[in-house]
Amino acid sequence: MVGVGLIGTGFMGKCHAMAWTSVRTVFGDVGPVRLVHLAETSAELAKQRADEFSFDKGSGDWRAVIEDPSVDVVSITTPNQFHPEMAIAALEAGKHIWCEKPMAPAFAEAEAMLAAARRSGKAAVLGYNYIQSPAIRHIATLLGEGVIGKVNHLRVEMDEDFMADPEAPFNWKHAATSGYGALDDFAVHPLSLVKALFGRVASVMCDMSRPYADRAVADGGRRPVETHDIASVLIHLDNGVSGTLLVNRSAWGRKGRIAVQIFGSKGSILFDQERFNEFQLYVTSDRPTEQGYRTILAAPVHKPYDRFIPAPGHGLGFNDLKTIECRELIRRIEGKPANLIEFDEGLEIERTVHAMARSFEEKRWVNVR
Amino acid sequence: MVGVGLIGTGFMGKCHAMAWTSVRTVFGDVGPVRLVHLAETSAELAKQRADEFSFDKGSGDWRAVIEDPSVDVVSITTPNQFHPEMAIAALEAGKHIWCEKPMAPAFAEAEAMLAAARRSGKAAVLGYNYIQSPAIRHIATLLGEGVIGKVNHLRVEMDEDFMADPEAPFNWKHAATSGYGALDDFAVHPLSLVKALFGRVASVMCDMSRPYADRAVADGGRRPVETHDIASVLIHLDNGVSGTLLVNRSAWGRKGRIAVQIFGSKGSILFDQERFNEFQLYVTSDRPTEQGYRTILAAPVHKPYDRFIPAPGHGLGFNDLKTIECRELIRRIEGKPANLIEFDEGLEIERTVHAMARSFEEKRWVNVR
Amino acid sequence: MVGVGLIGTGFMGKCHAMAWTSVRTVFGDVGPVRLVHLAETSAELAKQRADEFSFDKGSGDWRAVIEDPSVDVVSITTPNQFHPEMAIAALEAGKHIWCEKPMAPAFAEAEAMLAAARRSGKAAVLGYNYIQSPAIRHIATLLGEGVIGKVNHLRVEMDEDFMADPEAPFNWKHAATSGYGALDDFAVHPLSLVKALFGRVASVMCDMSRPYADRAVADGGRRPVETHDIASVLIHLDNGVSGTLLVNRSAWGRKGRIAVQIFGSKGSILFDQERFNEFQLYVTSDRPTEQGYRTILAAPVHKPYDRFIPAPGHGLGFNDLKTIECRELIRRIEGKPANLIEFDEGLEIERTVHAMARSFEEKRWVNVR
Amino acid sequence: MVGVGLIGTGFMGKCHAMAWTSVRTVFGDVGPVRLVHLAETSAELAKQRADEFSFDKGSGDWRAVIEDPSVDVVSITTPNQFHPEMAIAALEAGKHIWCEKPMAPAFAEAEAMLAAARRSGKAAVLGYNYIQSPAIRHIATLLGEGVIGKVNHLRVEMDEDFMADPEAPFNWKHAATSGYGALDDFAVHPLSLVKALFGRVASVMCDMSRPYADRAVADGGRRPVETHDIASVLIHLDNGVSGTLLVNRSAWGRKGRIAVQIFGSKGSILFDQERFNEFQLYVTSDRPTEQGYRTILAAPVHKPYDRFIPAPGHGLGFNDLKTIECRELIRRIEGKPANLIEFDEGLEIERTVHAMARSFEEKRWVNVR
Repeated sequence: MVGVGLIGTGFMGKCHAMAWTSVRTVFGDVGPVRLVHLAETSAELAKQRADEFSFDKGSGDWRAVIEDPSVDVVSITTPNQFHPEMAIAALEAGKHIWCEKPMAPAFAEAEAMLAAARRSGKAAVLGYNYIQSPAIRHIATLLGEGVIGKVNHLRVEMDEDFMADPEAPFNWKHAATSGYGALDDFAVHPLSLVKALFGRVASVMCDMSRPYADRAVADGGRRPVETHDIASVLIHLDNGVSGTLLVNRSAWGRKGRIAVQIFGSKGSILFDQERFNEFQLYVTSDRPTEQGYRTILAAPVHKPYDRFIPAPGHGLGFNDLKTIECRELIRRIEGKPANLIEFDEGLEIERTVHAMARSFEEKRWVNVR
Repeated sequence: MVGVGLIGTGFMGKCHAMAWTSVRTVFGDVGPVRLVHLAETSAELAKQRADEFSFDKGSGDWRAVIEDPSVDVVSITTPNQFHPEMAIAALEAGKHIWCEKPMAPAFAEAEAMLAAARRSGKAAVLGYNYIQSPAIRHIATLLGEGVIGKVNHLRVEMDEDFMADPEAPFNWKHAATSGYGALDDFAVHPLSLVKALFGRVASVMCDMSRPYADRAVADGGRRPVETHDIASVLIHLDNGVSGTLLVNRSAWGRKGRIAVQIFGSKGSILFDQERFNEFQLYVTSDRPTEQGYRTILAAPVHKPYDRFIPAPGHGLGFNDLKTIECRELIRRIEGKPANLIEFDEGLEIERTVHAMARSFEEKRWVNVR
Repeated sequence: MVGVGLIGTGFMGKCHAMAWTSVRTVFGDVGPVRLVHLAETSAELAKQRADEFSFDKGSGDWRAVIEDPSVDVVSITTPNQFHPEMAIAALEAGKHIWCEKPMAPAFAEAEAMLAAARRSGKAAVLGYNYIQSPAIRHIATLLGEGVIGKVNHLRVEMDEDFMADPEAPFNWKHAATSGYGALDDFAVHPLSLVKALFGRVASVMCDMSRPYADRAVADGGRRPVETHDIASVLIHLDNGVSGTLLVNRSAWGRKGRIAVQIFGSKGSILFDQERFNEFQLYVTSDRPTEQGYRTILAAPVHKPYDRFIPAPGHGLGFNDLKTIECRELIRRIEGKPANLIEFDEGLEIERTVHAMARSFEEKRWVNVR
Repeated sequence: MVGVGLIGTGFMGKCHAMAWTSVRTVFGDVGPVRLVHLAETSAELAKQRADEFSFDKGSGDWRAVIEDPSVDVVSITTPNQFHPEMAIAALEAGKHIWCEKPMAPAFAEAEAMLAAARRSGKAAVLGYNYIQSPAIRHIATLLGEGVIGKVNHLRVEMDEDFMADPEAPFNWKHAATSGYGALDDFAVHPLSLVKALFGRVASVMCDMSRPYADRAVADGGRRPVETHDIASVLIHLDNGVSGTLLVNRSAWGRKGRIAVQIFGSKGSILFDQERFNEFQLYVTSDRPTEQGYRTILAAPVHKPYDRFIPAPGHGLGFNDLKTIECRELIRRIEGKPANLIEFDEGLEIERTVHAMARSFEEKRWVNVR
């Protein structure tokens, strides 16, 4: 029996709640889950959400969750700036944690989080759920088998359009206090895929730009935008492979695109998160007259798709990826092998992001470590 | 508080369990759900599944579920042949029912089910979940608004390949006792979309064929296949629109395809269930030099996508459609307007299937009613 | 040296002129071509076009072309109603002919054309150029090799939108005198592909419909439309394979679609003329975890693509198909094996179209022969 | 009457011959073209090709073509290293020239070619035919109209797989004497599109890599590869727009891909040369519930598609782009406005390529000028 605590009930909080609710029904192979205690900014809202999400209790103070002896693991889904304090407190209280990414605005805080995790000996897992899709997991298998030979180049793009409207007023994401912009806002996602499929980034050369120099503010004037919606990065991996990472949160028409192109000595693989129930494979072992990209639909043969649906081509959803992650987390807590990004590799991702920002600042290649 | 009973815990049984488990967390606007009682073929299996699916009780006799006073609504997910007895018993016991499609192998049995539903005054809902996707629901809205003008032609295809392997041995679906073949096995799905988008079918002209004349049996011999994996049907709708319905369960490469093409006087719409998080729209109001099919990704603006994810292009899964259906069912039970196919329209779909089979038999156009 | 005559210099006349102009440069392996004599409706226009198209001579009377002793082969590209007289005269004058499809409005006339061809012993070839694309030719090879096993089902669609606008006034194609509508207007194209890939059609069951009941005429009133823009046909081939042929010339958004789906016991093949430089292949010999449709781009390995471009994926155009056809015609004239639809099979295609029309009229299955 | 000379009859030579042969038939609005004189490496081969390509004469010495008084314009399609001598000689002989790209291996030679062109006052045009496709030309129009607002970011990729096979032996393109590798081998193509759509590149930051360190040589040993098949470049345009240019000639599965992504303040545009008869447009002026990328097929409304085919969606071929270029060249010769890349902008493209190579060498941002 796993006792669950939840801090924050917004988009990701609800997402965690759904995952905790469904995980045993979907997988069957994990122990019972009890939804014990959630926290929101007020006791009233907490109670309402506890009711909606079927938690036993709701409190207006997140410390109540962390101190609850029935809670074994705490989902932390609050804004990034609150992660360090909550995560460290939970770890020190002997709880496992499942924390949304990125770890923290400042690198030193993220380091402190990792240190706390190491001291506690508890699972400290980050919510990089894109690595959990059956397609991405199968691509990892194919790479391991050498189906496309030795990988020699990599291109990754991540694009959305939630910052694309020049008429939208200045908000906190346009202020330098929020971070660099697209880099920390979502380049961490494609970096989690790079990590899952290839390993660590060794060095980076980054350019950034602002589509819109300023934006309207409430008083009728305009304020300069301080963050960068676009980042384009040349990368070298530890294993010597070269590549590019291009991100843009002002890309009209793109909604949840994470496009990956992997080139090897015997073939290539394409993937796009907007259609994450499929991927494309080109192999030179096909007869030359019939070589072409195969569009492969996720199916029960691509684990753990089969735990959701026994028929191919029917499609998992975004929330299902979180349910897979939740099951990996439970396995991790139970001491079994698990496919996750924990604080050590999460910190490495953030180190990479900061190196990119420094590269842009200094207009030169920067080594990540 | 809705008390839930569940009969059958296979693919669709699990699917119902997941929907009942998640519906309140996802939607927030439905009352609490209590998973009361499930039934399986043995008490032992029932207990195991009750544990996995978080039901209070499990019984080896489905009548125990129906007689349980804490049960308000019964999910019936057993093989089709058991639907009539169970559904009628449940309705007579004063339960609402959520029954998987099709209703029954024989039309008379389906009629008896409808009669029982009418007598009971309870909700009697069928599991046609494909009508629930945000894309299909938005297409219905667009048709209602006349965005593509007056519809004048319709093409629907449904194809999978689970019967495509000629080396697979003879099984019960190849015997005439199982029904007609692709027609009742899955033509009911595209017919649910036709119903949801356009209304009833008036007349049909059907052809059927067998890709493989016979199949291996256990004793080493071969047995003639008695059902038809392929059906191609010319249709006229009640509203005068002509169209075609083509189904094939031996279509290598197709996994969960339900391809819809809708032609109107001012545009057209395309949809494919294999990529049900998107649809395509062509409208003549675009400037001639830029007319083309728009690929529109499901997004929060397409209700109720927003209840699952607040960002566009992230994708729902097959099971999410069942959760939407579950919420509609609860609304129906609560006496609110709901988007569902109940026994009356379900019977109409089965009447249409039987008319198709008769048309093939008699090699002529047949009126459905 | 082949001496070329051309009757008609509209769309298809220009298309023939371009093919005759380019064929030797492209293929190298055909003898010299001399553009001798073309005819238009007036001597003046004929001269202008002879100048533009680099023909030696232009006449206002088509008989001058047929009687020209330097002309060996005559391209006939006039409206269908003129084909019989011109083709028969040319054949009787000892010329080979390259005649645009369909042969003639009335079946008896087409029969007379075939009889004339047989009497003359000359090549009498129809302009079914879609069978010439490298993709279609390679698909024929794959079918012959049994790459997708034994074919068991076939779906063909042809859709364009040139008749889709309800505001367009009544024109000659809406009058019964022009024929049946979509059936003879363009169903002959997909039938040429059926012929090239599978052979003859044995029996048909056809439905037709009119998207728009009437259209505006010049005097301000409206006139009933007499032809059918939509035809949907169930078909059985001579080889026992079942299929469907669906055509629609009022299909908003479709521009030059000829979509083919071929299902076999070991795989399937997809093709769409709107992207005729590619096709899709699914084979069960691929490992189950990587089975999917391969998108194969036309390449030099798909003959005779290499005669146009030595690099893959660069793309042939519609007019190039005509150039390939022209080279096949020259080979035919030279007595070599050639891939063409001549009058005998052309007549068979028209027999099939008339059978479809009769089936619709009589609401029953009709045998083509 | 334009008298045409041709030097070289390989792939591009044949391509020029086909363009010169067809241009008047296709366009009608250009004067007569006479194929006067071609040159090959031997008199014998030259005569054979003159026969095949319908030229009046063939010579074994290219100077004979340049000195032929009937020749007005010379197509130069020999390997790059011969361009400077031939181009300068032809210009000095008072001929217009149509020279394949890139101009020359060394920048100083390219400069000399431009100087010769300026002295002569003749047309000196480069064969950048990708800018001629109806889709690209229409995209330029849309950008000019501001349909996607102010462009703020650009991504261009060019990928083929002709160098992807690690088993292929060392050839001249692997030697440093051939140039940098992918950069000069084909990055010039996407740069021609950047030039046509946006203008000049201001500064670059380039990374290059080698998929295969060495390759087999004839004596059984292996030789280190000296050129780079992969180049990834961060770019800033003169107009301030940022972007990336990524090229890879070892990209298994890619055949003729030139993928362009253009992001603006009101929409975005996508294009891929592998399907150059279409492009995609996203605009925010569409209703939010129906915003999506439109796939727009090339049609007669996209000039000069109509000169080839009067129906939409039927598709031009690669060689047709050369015919369009040829017509622009004739217009240029006739003193009319023409859409071409001449030596001045061609030199700019090569300056950009050399700046990229220097950036890679020096690991820093380099200004092009």
